[in-house]
Amino acid sequence: MKRLAHPPVLEKLVLELGRLPGIGPKSATALAYHLVGQSTERLKGLAETIGSLPDRIISCATCGMLTEQDPCTVCEDGSRDRTILCVVEKPLDVLSIERTGTYSGLYHVLGGVLSPLDGVGPSQLRIREMLERLKSSDVTEIIIATNPSVEGEATANYLRETLNNLDLGIELTRFARGLPIGGELTYADEDTLAVAIQSRKAMDE
Amino acid sequence: MKRLAHPPVLEKLVLELGRLPGIGPKSATALAYHLVGQSTERLKGLAETIGSLPDRIISCATCGMLTEQDPCTVCEDGSRDRTILCVVEKPLDVLSIERTGTYSGLYHVLGGVLSPLDGVGPSQLRIREMLERLKSSDVTEIIIATNPSVEGEATANYLRETLNNLDLGIELTRFARGLPIGGELTYADEDTLAVAIQSRKAMDE
Repeated sequence: MKRLAHPPVLEKLVLELGRLPGIGPKSATALAYHLVGQSTERLKGLAETIGSLPDRIISCATCGMLTEQDPCTVCEDGSRDRTILCVVEKPLDVLSIERTGTYSGLYHVLGGVLSPLDGVGPSQLRIREMLERLKSSDVTEIIIATNPSVEGEATANYLRETLNNLDLGIELTRFARGLPIGGELTYADEDTLAVAIQSRKAMDE
Repeated sequence: MKRLAHPPVLEKLVLELGRLPGIGPKSATALAYHLVGQSTERLKGLAETIGSLPDRIISCATCGMLTEQDPCTVCEDGSRDRTILCVVEKPLDVLSIERTGTYSGLYHVLGGVLSPLDGVGPSQLRIREMLERLKSSDVTEIIIATNPSVEGEATANYLRETLNNLDLGIELTRFARGLPIGGELTYADEDTLAVAIQSRKAMDE
């Protein structure tokens, strides 16, 4: 007697869904069986959306953000503050910063971080494009907003040295580190707490 | 100044992914941006798989299991024990039981449970098909394997009454209830513990 397995097309779907980040084999199975119960219209719609990604989504030649038009809406927006440039690792980082509503400058997406073990060196990131951009720009401040991880810090240091060597007279900044809002001392990791202590600020009167 | 949002096709994908069970807005966004970074080949492949579901997946006319061929491999398998029929709610339940490797009989998928509030009555489930099937079958035992939930129990009771009224001489059984293997008394809910106490069994010598 043969044990029943998924029908081939569902097996394939389970495998493909299981390769997505954060989706384990059980979730992939549940998702696949959920999908097969949806209307033909919805499935064809989802297939069409996914299949159209390669044709519709491009990178903005200026900032590297994902967009359907080049230049992207940020690079094109005349009301943006063109004296400040925020350098991030990934397109999603741009959206996170936009959601805060506290930044109105331009962006530059590196497309990753320096990671020698993964074969990612400076030429794999959009650093040359950034330097090219700065040649004819009004930028007076660059926020190096790579993540506070080992690779993110290494990338930030590399960018600082590169930019300082060029002596462009641009101020370099980095996001403040410290305790997250709503966080508790008890649950903060040692490194975060150490930074929070060292970077303590005078209380407002 | 306009805040940057997702490009339209990604916005659409985030919405569609966010409607899947267990995927919140943040996961949907992360998944969409992960997908857009995949190769054209992989994206077209995933789109093709999802788009082909309506054409390729059908329900077995006999048991109601999802399949690409009718009858399905279980119904067709001559080495299955045709004297025992396991009635389940959903196609995934069949696979869960198959994975235990302890059941070699046939299945019948109801396609849901009785749920008057959701407008699901007996005629919405594959009960008529089950009774039809039993007319010319060798079945001597039916395991009513609906879930131990309120609706599952109600459905099991309805099936018991229906089958008893027909006086087919078929034994009706239900999966044992009790503490899950590896579970602890401390974490068992009251109902499960109550069932485990009432259904206690003599220890093997």
